[in-house]
Amino acid sequence: MYIAILGYGTVGSGIARVLEMNSECISQRAGEKIEVKYILDLREFPGDPLEKKVVHDINIILDDPQIQVVCETMGGNEPAYTYSKEALKRGKSVCTSNKELVANHGAELIALAKEHYCHYLFEASVGGGIPIIRPLNDALTAEKIVEITGILNGTTNYILTHMQTDGAAFEDVLKSAQEKGYAERNPEADVEGYDACRKIAILSSMAAGKTVDFRQIYTEGITKIGQIDFEYARKLGKTIKLLATSREEKDGYFAMVAPFLVGEENPLASVNGVFNAILVEGNTLGECMFYGKGAGKLPTASAVVSDVVECARYPRGSGKVFWKEGSVKVSSIDEASGRSLIRVKSEDEKQAKELFEIKEILRLDTHPEEFGFVTEKMKERDVKEKLDKLSGVLGRIRIKS
Amino acid sequence: MYIAILGYGTVGSGIARVLEMNSECISQRAGEKIEVKYILDLREFPGDPLEKKVVHDINIILDDPQIQVVCETMGGNEPAYTYSKEALKRGKSVCTSNKELVANHGAELIALAKEHYCHYLFEASVGGGIPIIRPLNDALTAEKIVEITGILNGTTNYILTHMQTDGAAFEDVLKSAQEKGYAERNPEADVEGYDACRKIAILSSMAAGKTVDFRQIYTEGITKIGQIDFEYARKLGKTIKLLATSREEKDGYFAMVAPFLVGEENPLASVNGVFNAILVEGNTLGECMFYGKGAGKLPTASAVVSDVVECARYPRGSGKVFWKEGSVKVSSIDEASGRSLIRVKSEDEKQAKELFEIKEILRLDTHPEEFGFVTEKMKERDVKEKLDKLSGVLGRIRIKS
Repeated sequence: MYIAILGYGTVGSGIARVLEMNSECISQRAGEKIEVKYILDLREFPGDPLEKKVVHDINIILDDPQIQVVCETMGGNEPAYTYSKEALKRGKSVCTSNKELVANHGAELIALAKEHYCHYLFEASVGGGIPIIRPLNDALTAEKIVEITGILNGTTNYILTHMQTDGAAFEDVLKSAQEKGYAERNPEADVEGYDACRKIAILSSMAAGKTVDFRQIYTEGITKIGQIDFEYARKLGKTIKLLATSREEKDGYFAMVAPFLVGEENPLASVNGVFNAILVEGNTLGECMFYGKGAGKLPTASAVVSDVVECARYPRGSGKVFWKEGSVKVSSIDEASGRSLIRVKSEDEKQAKELFEIKEILRLDTHPEEFGFVTEKMKERDVKEKLDKLSGVLGRIRIKS
Repeated sequence: MYIAILGYGTVGSGIARVLEMNSECISQRAGEKIEVKYILDLREFPGDPLEKKVVHDINIILDDPQIQVVCETMGGNEPAYTYSKEALKRGKSVCTSNKELVANHGAELIALAKEHYCHYLFEASVGGGIPIIRPLNDALTAEKIVEITGILNGTTNYILTHMQTDGAAFEDVLKSAQEKGYAERNPEADVEGYDACRKIAILSSMAAGKTVDFRQIYTEGITKIGQIDFEYARKLGKTIKLLATSREEKDGYFAMVAPFLVGEENPLASVNGVFNAILVEGNTLGECMFYGKGAGKLPTASAVVSDVVECARYPRGSGKVFWKEGSVKVSSIDEASGRSLIRVKSEDEKQAKELFEIKEILRLDTHPEEFGFVTEKMKERDVKEKLDKLSGVLGRIRIKS
């Protein structure tokens, strides 16, 4: 089976590497040998073993009837969107690592693939090398998915883990993560939670069977988290994680991305460094968790190749991806309820006590100028209303129940 | 699609329950409604909503051409083996939770299913509700599996977790586990590691593509583990887990079940209570882990039903399970190498130092009559040889690298 790779960057070149390294076992599982015939990229790659396969015109790939699968690892919306549509229309399956495109146009591309008896597969778009898309589609088929909560971004998890273990400030850990290549020079998409937001949108859409629009998901990053938050966390026997979570509600879905205090009993609490994990709660299964590397050249490439193997096994498509066009109602965050840790200036203790029912005041020896407390379980709307009235609010972190 | 359930015990009745609870989403994913037509059991179930479906003769099921899938939840080798073979010979798929039968005759039954264009599926046989068989078959298809290590038995993990957290003795925790229904009245299969042994044999066979004979897997249970071992573990920043592990070697497979000291950096260290987890190391993916409930009525039933859904989706079989007849060489444990914690009587310190290269002596304030030390990385054969010469050996636990 001949394939083409669109974009010869980190993931694209990883695909060629995985196909070469594991050629024998991949052929066995696919039932045939998988060979890269073209690589589409604007650049040339002199000296690369595959340099002769590099082309600059997508039509060479689209017009070649030998090409059955296109691996799209370009990232971004365009031209990936147009190229993917054109490939699918000609019955060529598309396997992608492009979470942006999947979050934006997943349902449409899945429908197009079905119409043309081929596949649109995106295992690599969430959780890098962690098998999560295929298990949701093929393994948890007897389950009603109640909740999905994940640590879906390795950069922020690396930063939070090192803030906790090294006692360093956010900016310093970010800088060292950038030096080590764990964070981008422009880290906004990671640290502001945008990356995790797109990924939870994809997972939620699969659970819901219709699109959960990522633009409607409340998203808060980790830039406001400081060492002092970790001091309170330790007092509470918890750690801080950036969680992306979604839960089915009566008339729609509730979803959000935000830093949470996570108790040690939660398996997500011990997911450290660049690792990712997705905790899925099913109504009969209870909790199960998928853990592994959320990014990286070879793990992500391995996920794309596993999609290619599926295309080889089912050359006429499978129609098994239950994510249809149309969108699901995303409930307002106002209605979500839970407990929070609130930090307040010491001078405003009296006012805080008037507004909130406070069972215990948390004080840090290192910071006499402030205190913290944990709220009752209450709606976001009510927390917000009370915090607006309270003058000395220094911070707030939600607590994962 | 009509199915029959063989054995109306915990898992068998769970299947009926899951099909009823999640009827709508299961039908959607299967593409048709799945209905229980017969239940085979020796007993009657007066008052049970399905009592009229109970039959006592397997031939009623085998002779009914409407039955496409048989769920075998009888456990044990016979009559499950004979019934499964007969069903497969008539083109009826078999979905089982019976690890005993799968470990013994998996390859043969898979081949028989292929021959008759139907399925022999066993997601529920390992890790209860944790999707692991299907991910190994369908998701990790681009990977060369290097190692599989799991906590595959909930009873022993519950006991070890409570020994650690409550400081109680093995016998006391076992007794309370029996009272709570987490351990059988005859706990031998669990506490001696036999259950975990069959499960790692199944997983290893799938990774190897041929049968790894469970009889050849070195198996050691947890009955010798005491509080004093946990005291040493704490000193080393580790915990104790019963691990089932297998690794591909040059000319075969190396596999064993034994208690191990596990460091906090290993994700298996934080798998507590009745939960199970399987850590899979792939050559390009690195480590990924699957975590969840390893047993229980509904989680195990959910796994069987997910197999039934696969039968509905691919009614002519898929031939995708790569576990062929023939067996893989299981290497002798003598050749395995690693570090161990050794406990020795204080009076034999001099002799221990002559035999082993000891970097640090570990002493517990509570037990002046003994000491411990960690060996270098050395072969099992050599450890054994030296321990045979050392008179005051009180215990030994391997350390997971």
